[in-house]
Amino acid sequence: MAQQKATNITWHQATVTAQEREQLLNQKGCVIWFTGLSGSGKSTLANAVAQLLHQRQHHTYVLDGDNVRHGLNKNLGFSPEDRAENIRRIGEVAKLFADAGTIAMTAFISPYRADREQARALLADNRFVEVFVECPLDVCEERDTKGLYKKARAGEIKEFTGISAPYEPPLKSEVTLNTAELSLEECAQAVIAFLEETDLVPAGR
Amino acid sequence: MAQQKATNITWHQATVTAQEREQLLNQKGCVIWFTGLSGSGKSTLANAVAQLLHQRQHHTYVLDGDNVRHGLNKNLGFSPEDRAENIRRIGEVAKLFADAGTIAMTAFISPYRADREQARALLADNRFVEVFVECPLDVCEERDTKGLYKKARAGEIKEFTGISAPYEPPLKSEVTLNTAELSLEECAQAVIAFLEETDLVPAGR
Repeated sequence: MAQQKATNITWHQATVTAQEREQLLNQKGCVIWFTGLSGSGKSTLANAVAQLLHQRQHHTYVLDGDNVRHGLNKNLGFSPEDRAENIRRIGEVAKLFADAGTIAMTAFISPYRADREQARALLADNRFVEVFVECPLDVCEERDTKGLYKKARAGEIKEFTGISAPYEPPLKSEVTLNTAELSLEECAQAVIAFLEETDLVPAGR
Repeated sequence: MAQQKATNITWHQATVTAQEREQLLNQKGCVIWFTGLSGSGKSTLANAVAQLLHQRQHHTYVLDGDNVRHGLNKNLGFSPEDRAENIRRIGEVAKLFADAGTIAMTAFISPYRADREQARALLADNRFVEVFVECPLDVCEERDTKGLYKKARAGEIKEFTGISAPYEPPLKSEVTLNTAELSLEECAQAVIAFLEETDLVPAGR
């Protein structure tokens, strides 16, 4: 693409707007918030969606335990206050990514409705896509990808979502996907279809 | 650009890598950390650099008081601990943006060397560019863009950097720019030149 000359710049108070960043990236900045039990497939699904979008030249970023818990939120524990602050910060960071024009995805259990609604409230209408990764507890427990259910059942982990702490399912999620019944590809394509329908990304060719 | 077929996807454990995001954006993810006194021109300079890079189709994002203090860091005050935590979180978020492949810029006084070094330590070598926005105190105070120096002199603001709290200038900043002597365009071009020299962005045409 042609490069503009620096002489076009208005120096003072000049900023690149969110809209200009979106034009550059050919997409709308947004937050796709995956929520569900441990083992439901949130992170796998978020990364699959990221991969499909990347193949279409879209800019994505997945926030998950790997890049958040040991960095930004490393000074938080697992008290109720710290859990709420954990989700609050993730919501704020996701908002910054959306403002940058990026399609930000978050993959955290985020069991409380109030916490998720707080994250939603930071974004403009239709820029927050809540994806309920629905999967029966017994299936998640059978998968037990991280061995956490076993520890929770043995009492080694306290207040474990689904076992000894509540999970509040979304009442009005934009997308609901049962990962015990659908394939990963079907789930990922359903998320992409929603993004296309709401004009967050152009329709695929 | 041609779109790949979804059939190439390896579903399990598949993630988009940082390198793949950089290829998409045709740049290297990095953090440009502007530091200097209040009124030195950090935010104006960061936004001018963002504008020049955007004209070259680069993806940038400026973190500053406007988008951080009222969001992610709204639960922080001005105690020494909170000031340190403020800069720590900004460093962690900037790192996430760099990991996303974005050229992240931060425009905060960040007066303490130790805090800046902590932010630097999060990034790989040459992915952290410290820009010392040097400007004599008397010039900053004369500008007094936000009226803060007047309040600090009147004792209405305590521990104000340069007046009643120290500013520790960088000892090894990648770029040092005296905004009392150079024009904004000269300063912005000097930052761009450094990014080109270190291959963070391709040379301009």
